[in-house]
Amino acid sequence: MSDVLKISQVNELNYEDFIGRFGNVIEHCSIVAAAVWRFRPFRDVHHLHQEICSFVDLLPETGKEGVLRLHPDLAGRLAELGSLTQESSAEQKAAGLDTMTPEEKQLLKDTNIKYRDKFGFPFVICARQNKKEAILKGIVERLEHSAEEELNIGIEEVKKICLLRLLSIVPDDK
Amino acid sequence: MSDVLKISQVNELNYEDFIGRFGNVIEHCSIVAAAVWRFRPFRDVHHLHQEICSFVDLLPETGKEGVLRLHPDLAGRLAELGSLTQESSAEQKAAGLDTMTPEEKQLLKDTNIKYRDKFGFPFVICARQNKKEAILKGIVERLEHSAEEELNIGIEEVKKICLLRLLSIVPDDK
Repeated sequence: MSDVLKISQVNELNYEDFIGRFGNVIEHCSIVAAAVWRFRPFRDVHHLHQEICSFVDLLPETGKEGVLRLHPDLAGRLAELGSLTQESSAEQKAAGLDTMTPEEKQLLKDTNIKYRDKFGFPFVICARQNKKEAILKGIVERLEHSAEEELNIGIEEVKKICLLRLLSIVPDDK
Repeated sequence: MSDVLKISQVNELNYEDFIGRFGNVIEHCSIVAAAVWRFRPFRDVHHLHQEICSFVDLLPETGKEGVLRLHPDLAGRLAELGSLTQESSAEQKAAGLDTMTPEEKQLLKDTNIKYRDKFGFPFVICARQNKKEAILKGIVERLEHSAEEELNIGIEEVKKICLLRLLSIVPDDK
């Protein structure tokens, strides 16, 4: 299961194996993989990503909120407990979130709580494309947005996270 | 976590705890609980069920197919491996699927394969409301339907399963 796949191999998977491999490219949303399986054959990994993005865009607004609510708080309780999904754990580490000072941790924790209280979903950012300084700056700024803006921004971040997760399973040149 | 809840307790849950309790009322579709959380306060368990059904109805057709694909084959590989979710395992047992003769098992297995090949999703039926004889008869009959009919029937069965799972968490008189 840790081997990478060629797109031709992806296209041969039955739906159970497809869901097994791609079920967490959107955190805890295996319905997305289960839904887009029907669009095989995929031309390449970007075609697969595009179908996933189209599916997410078709979700009702409550469903998009649901997608965000299935994401863990950055450097939150799950990270402390070591209970993150394998993907989230690696991403948070890549952003340097495991090297935060106690003060940075407290700031992120406090701002996360304010963010969740205001919007009813967690702050989601593509950690692999942002270092901890940018993440800390981002959450403080985004807290000022409207719920509608943050729903859209959060979902676009989910799509970026998804592409990086897909590429780790199906590298671009395969 | 095994205690039942009153609806007033349900309405006090934050989204993480809500998803933790209701994340599998639709098999492997925690997005549904994550989405309907915003409709608190719920008047009673039936109101919660109604919001879940409305959400499922709003999913694009591919999403409904995805919901079905996240269900295990009845008495299939996962049951043999003991890898069913706790809910599915109890439901299949209640239907008497664990007492099938070898011939019945083979019939169910063969028909399941034909069903999946024809429709691209598994045969889903509310096992708690059907005994094994009705299930075996049902799958043979439903195999003759169109994909559109079976998508609708399957989703209606998912909603019945969901109500029974909800009632096991929030009994009706609470």
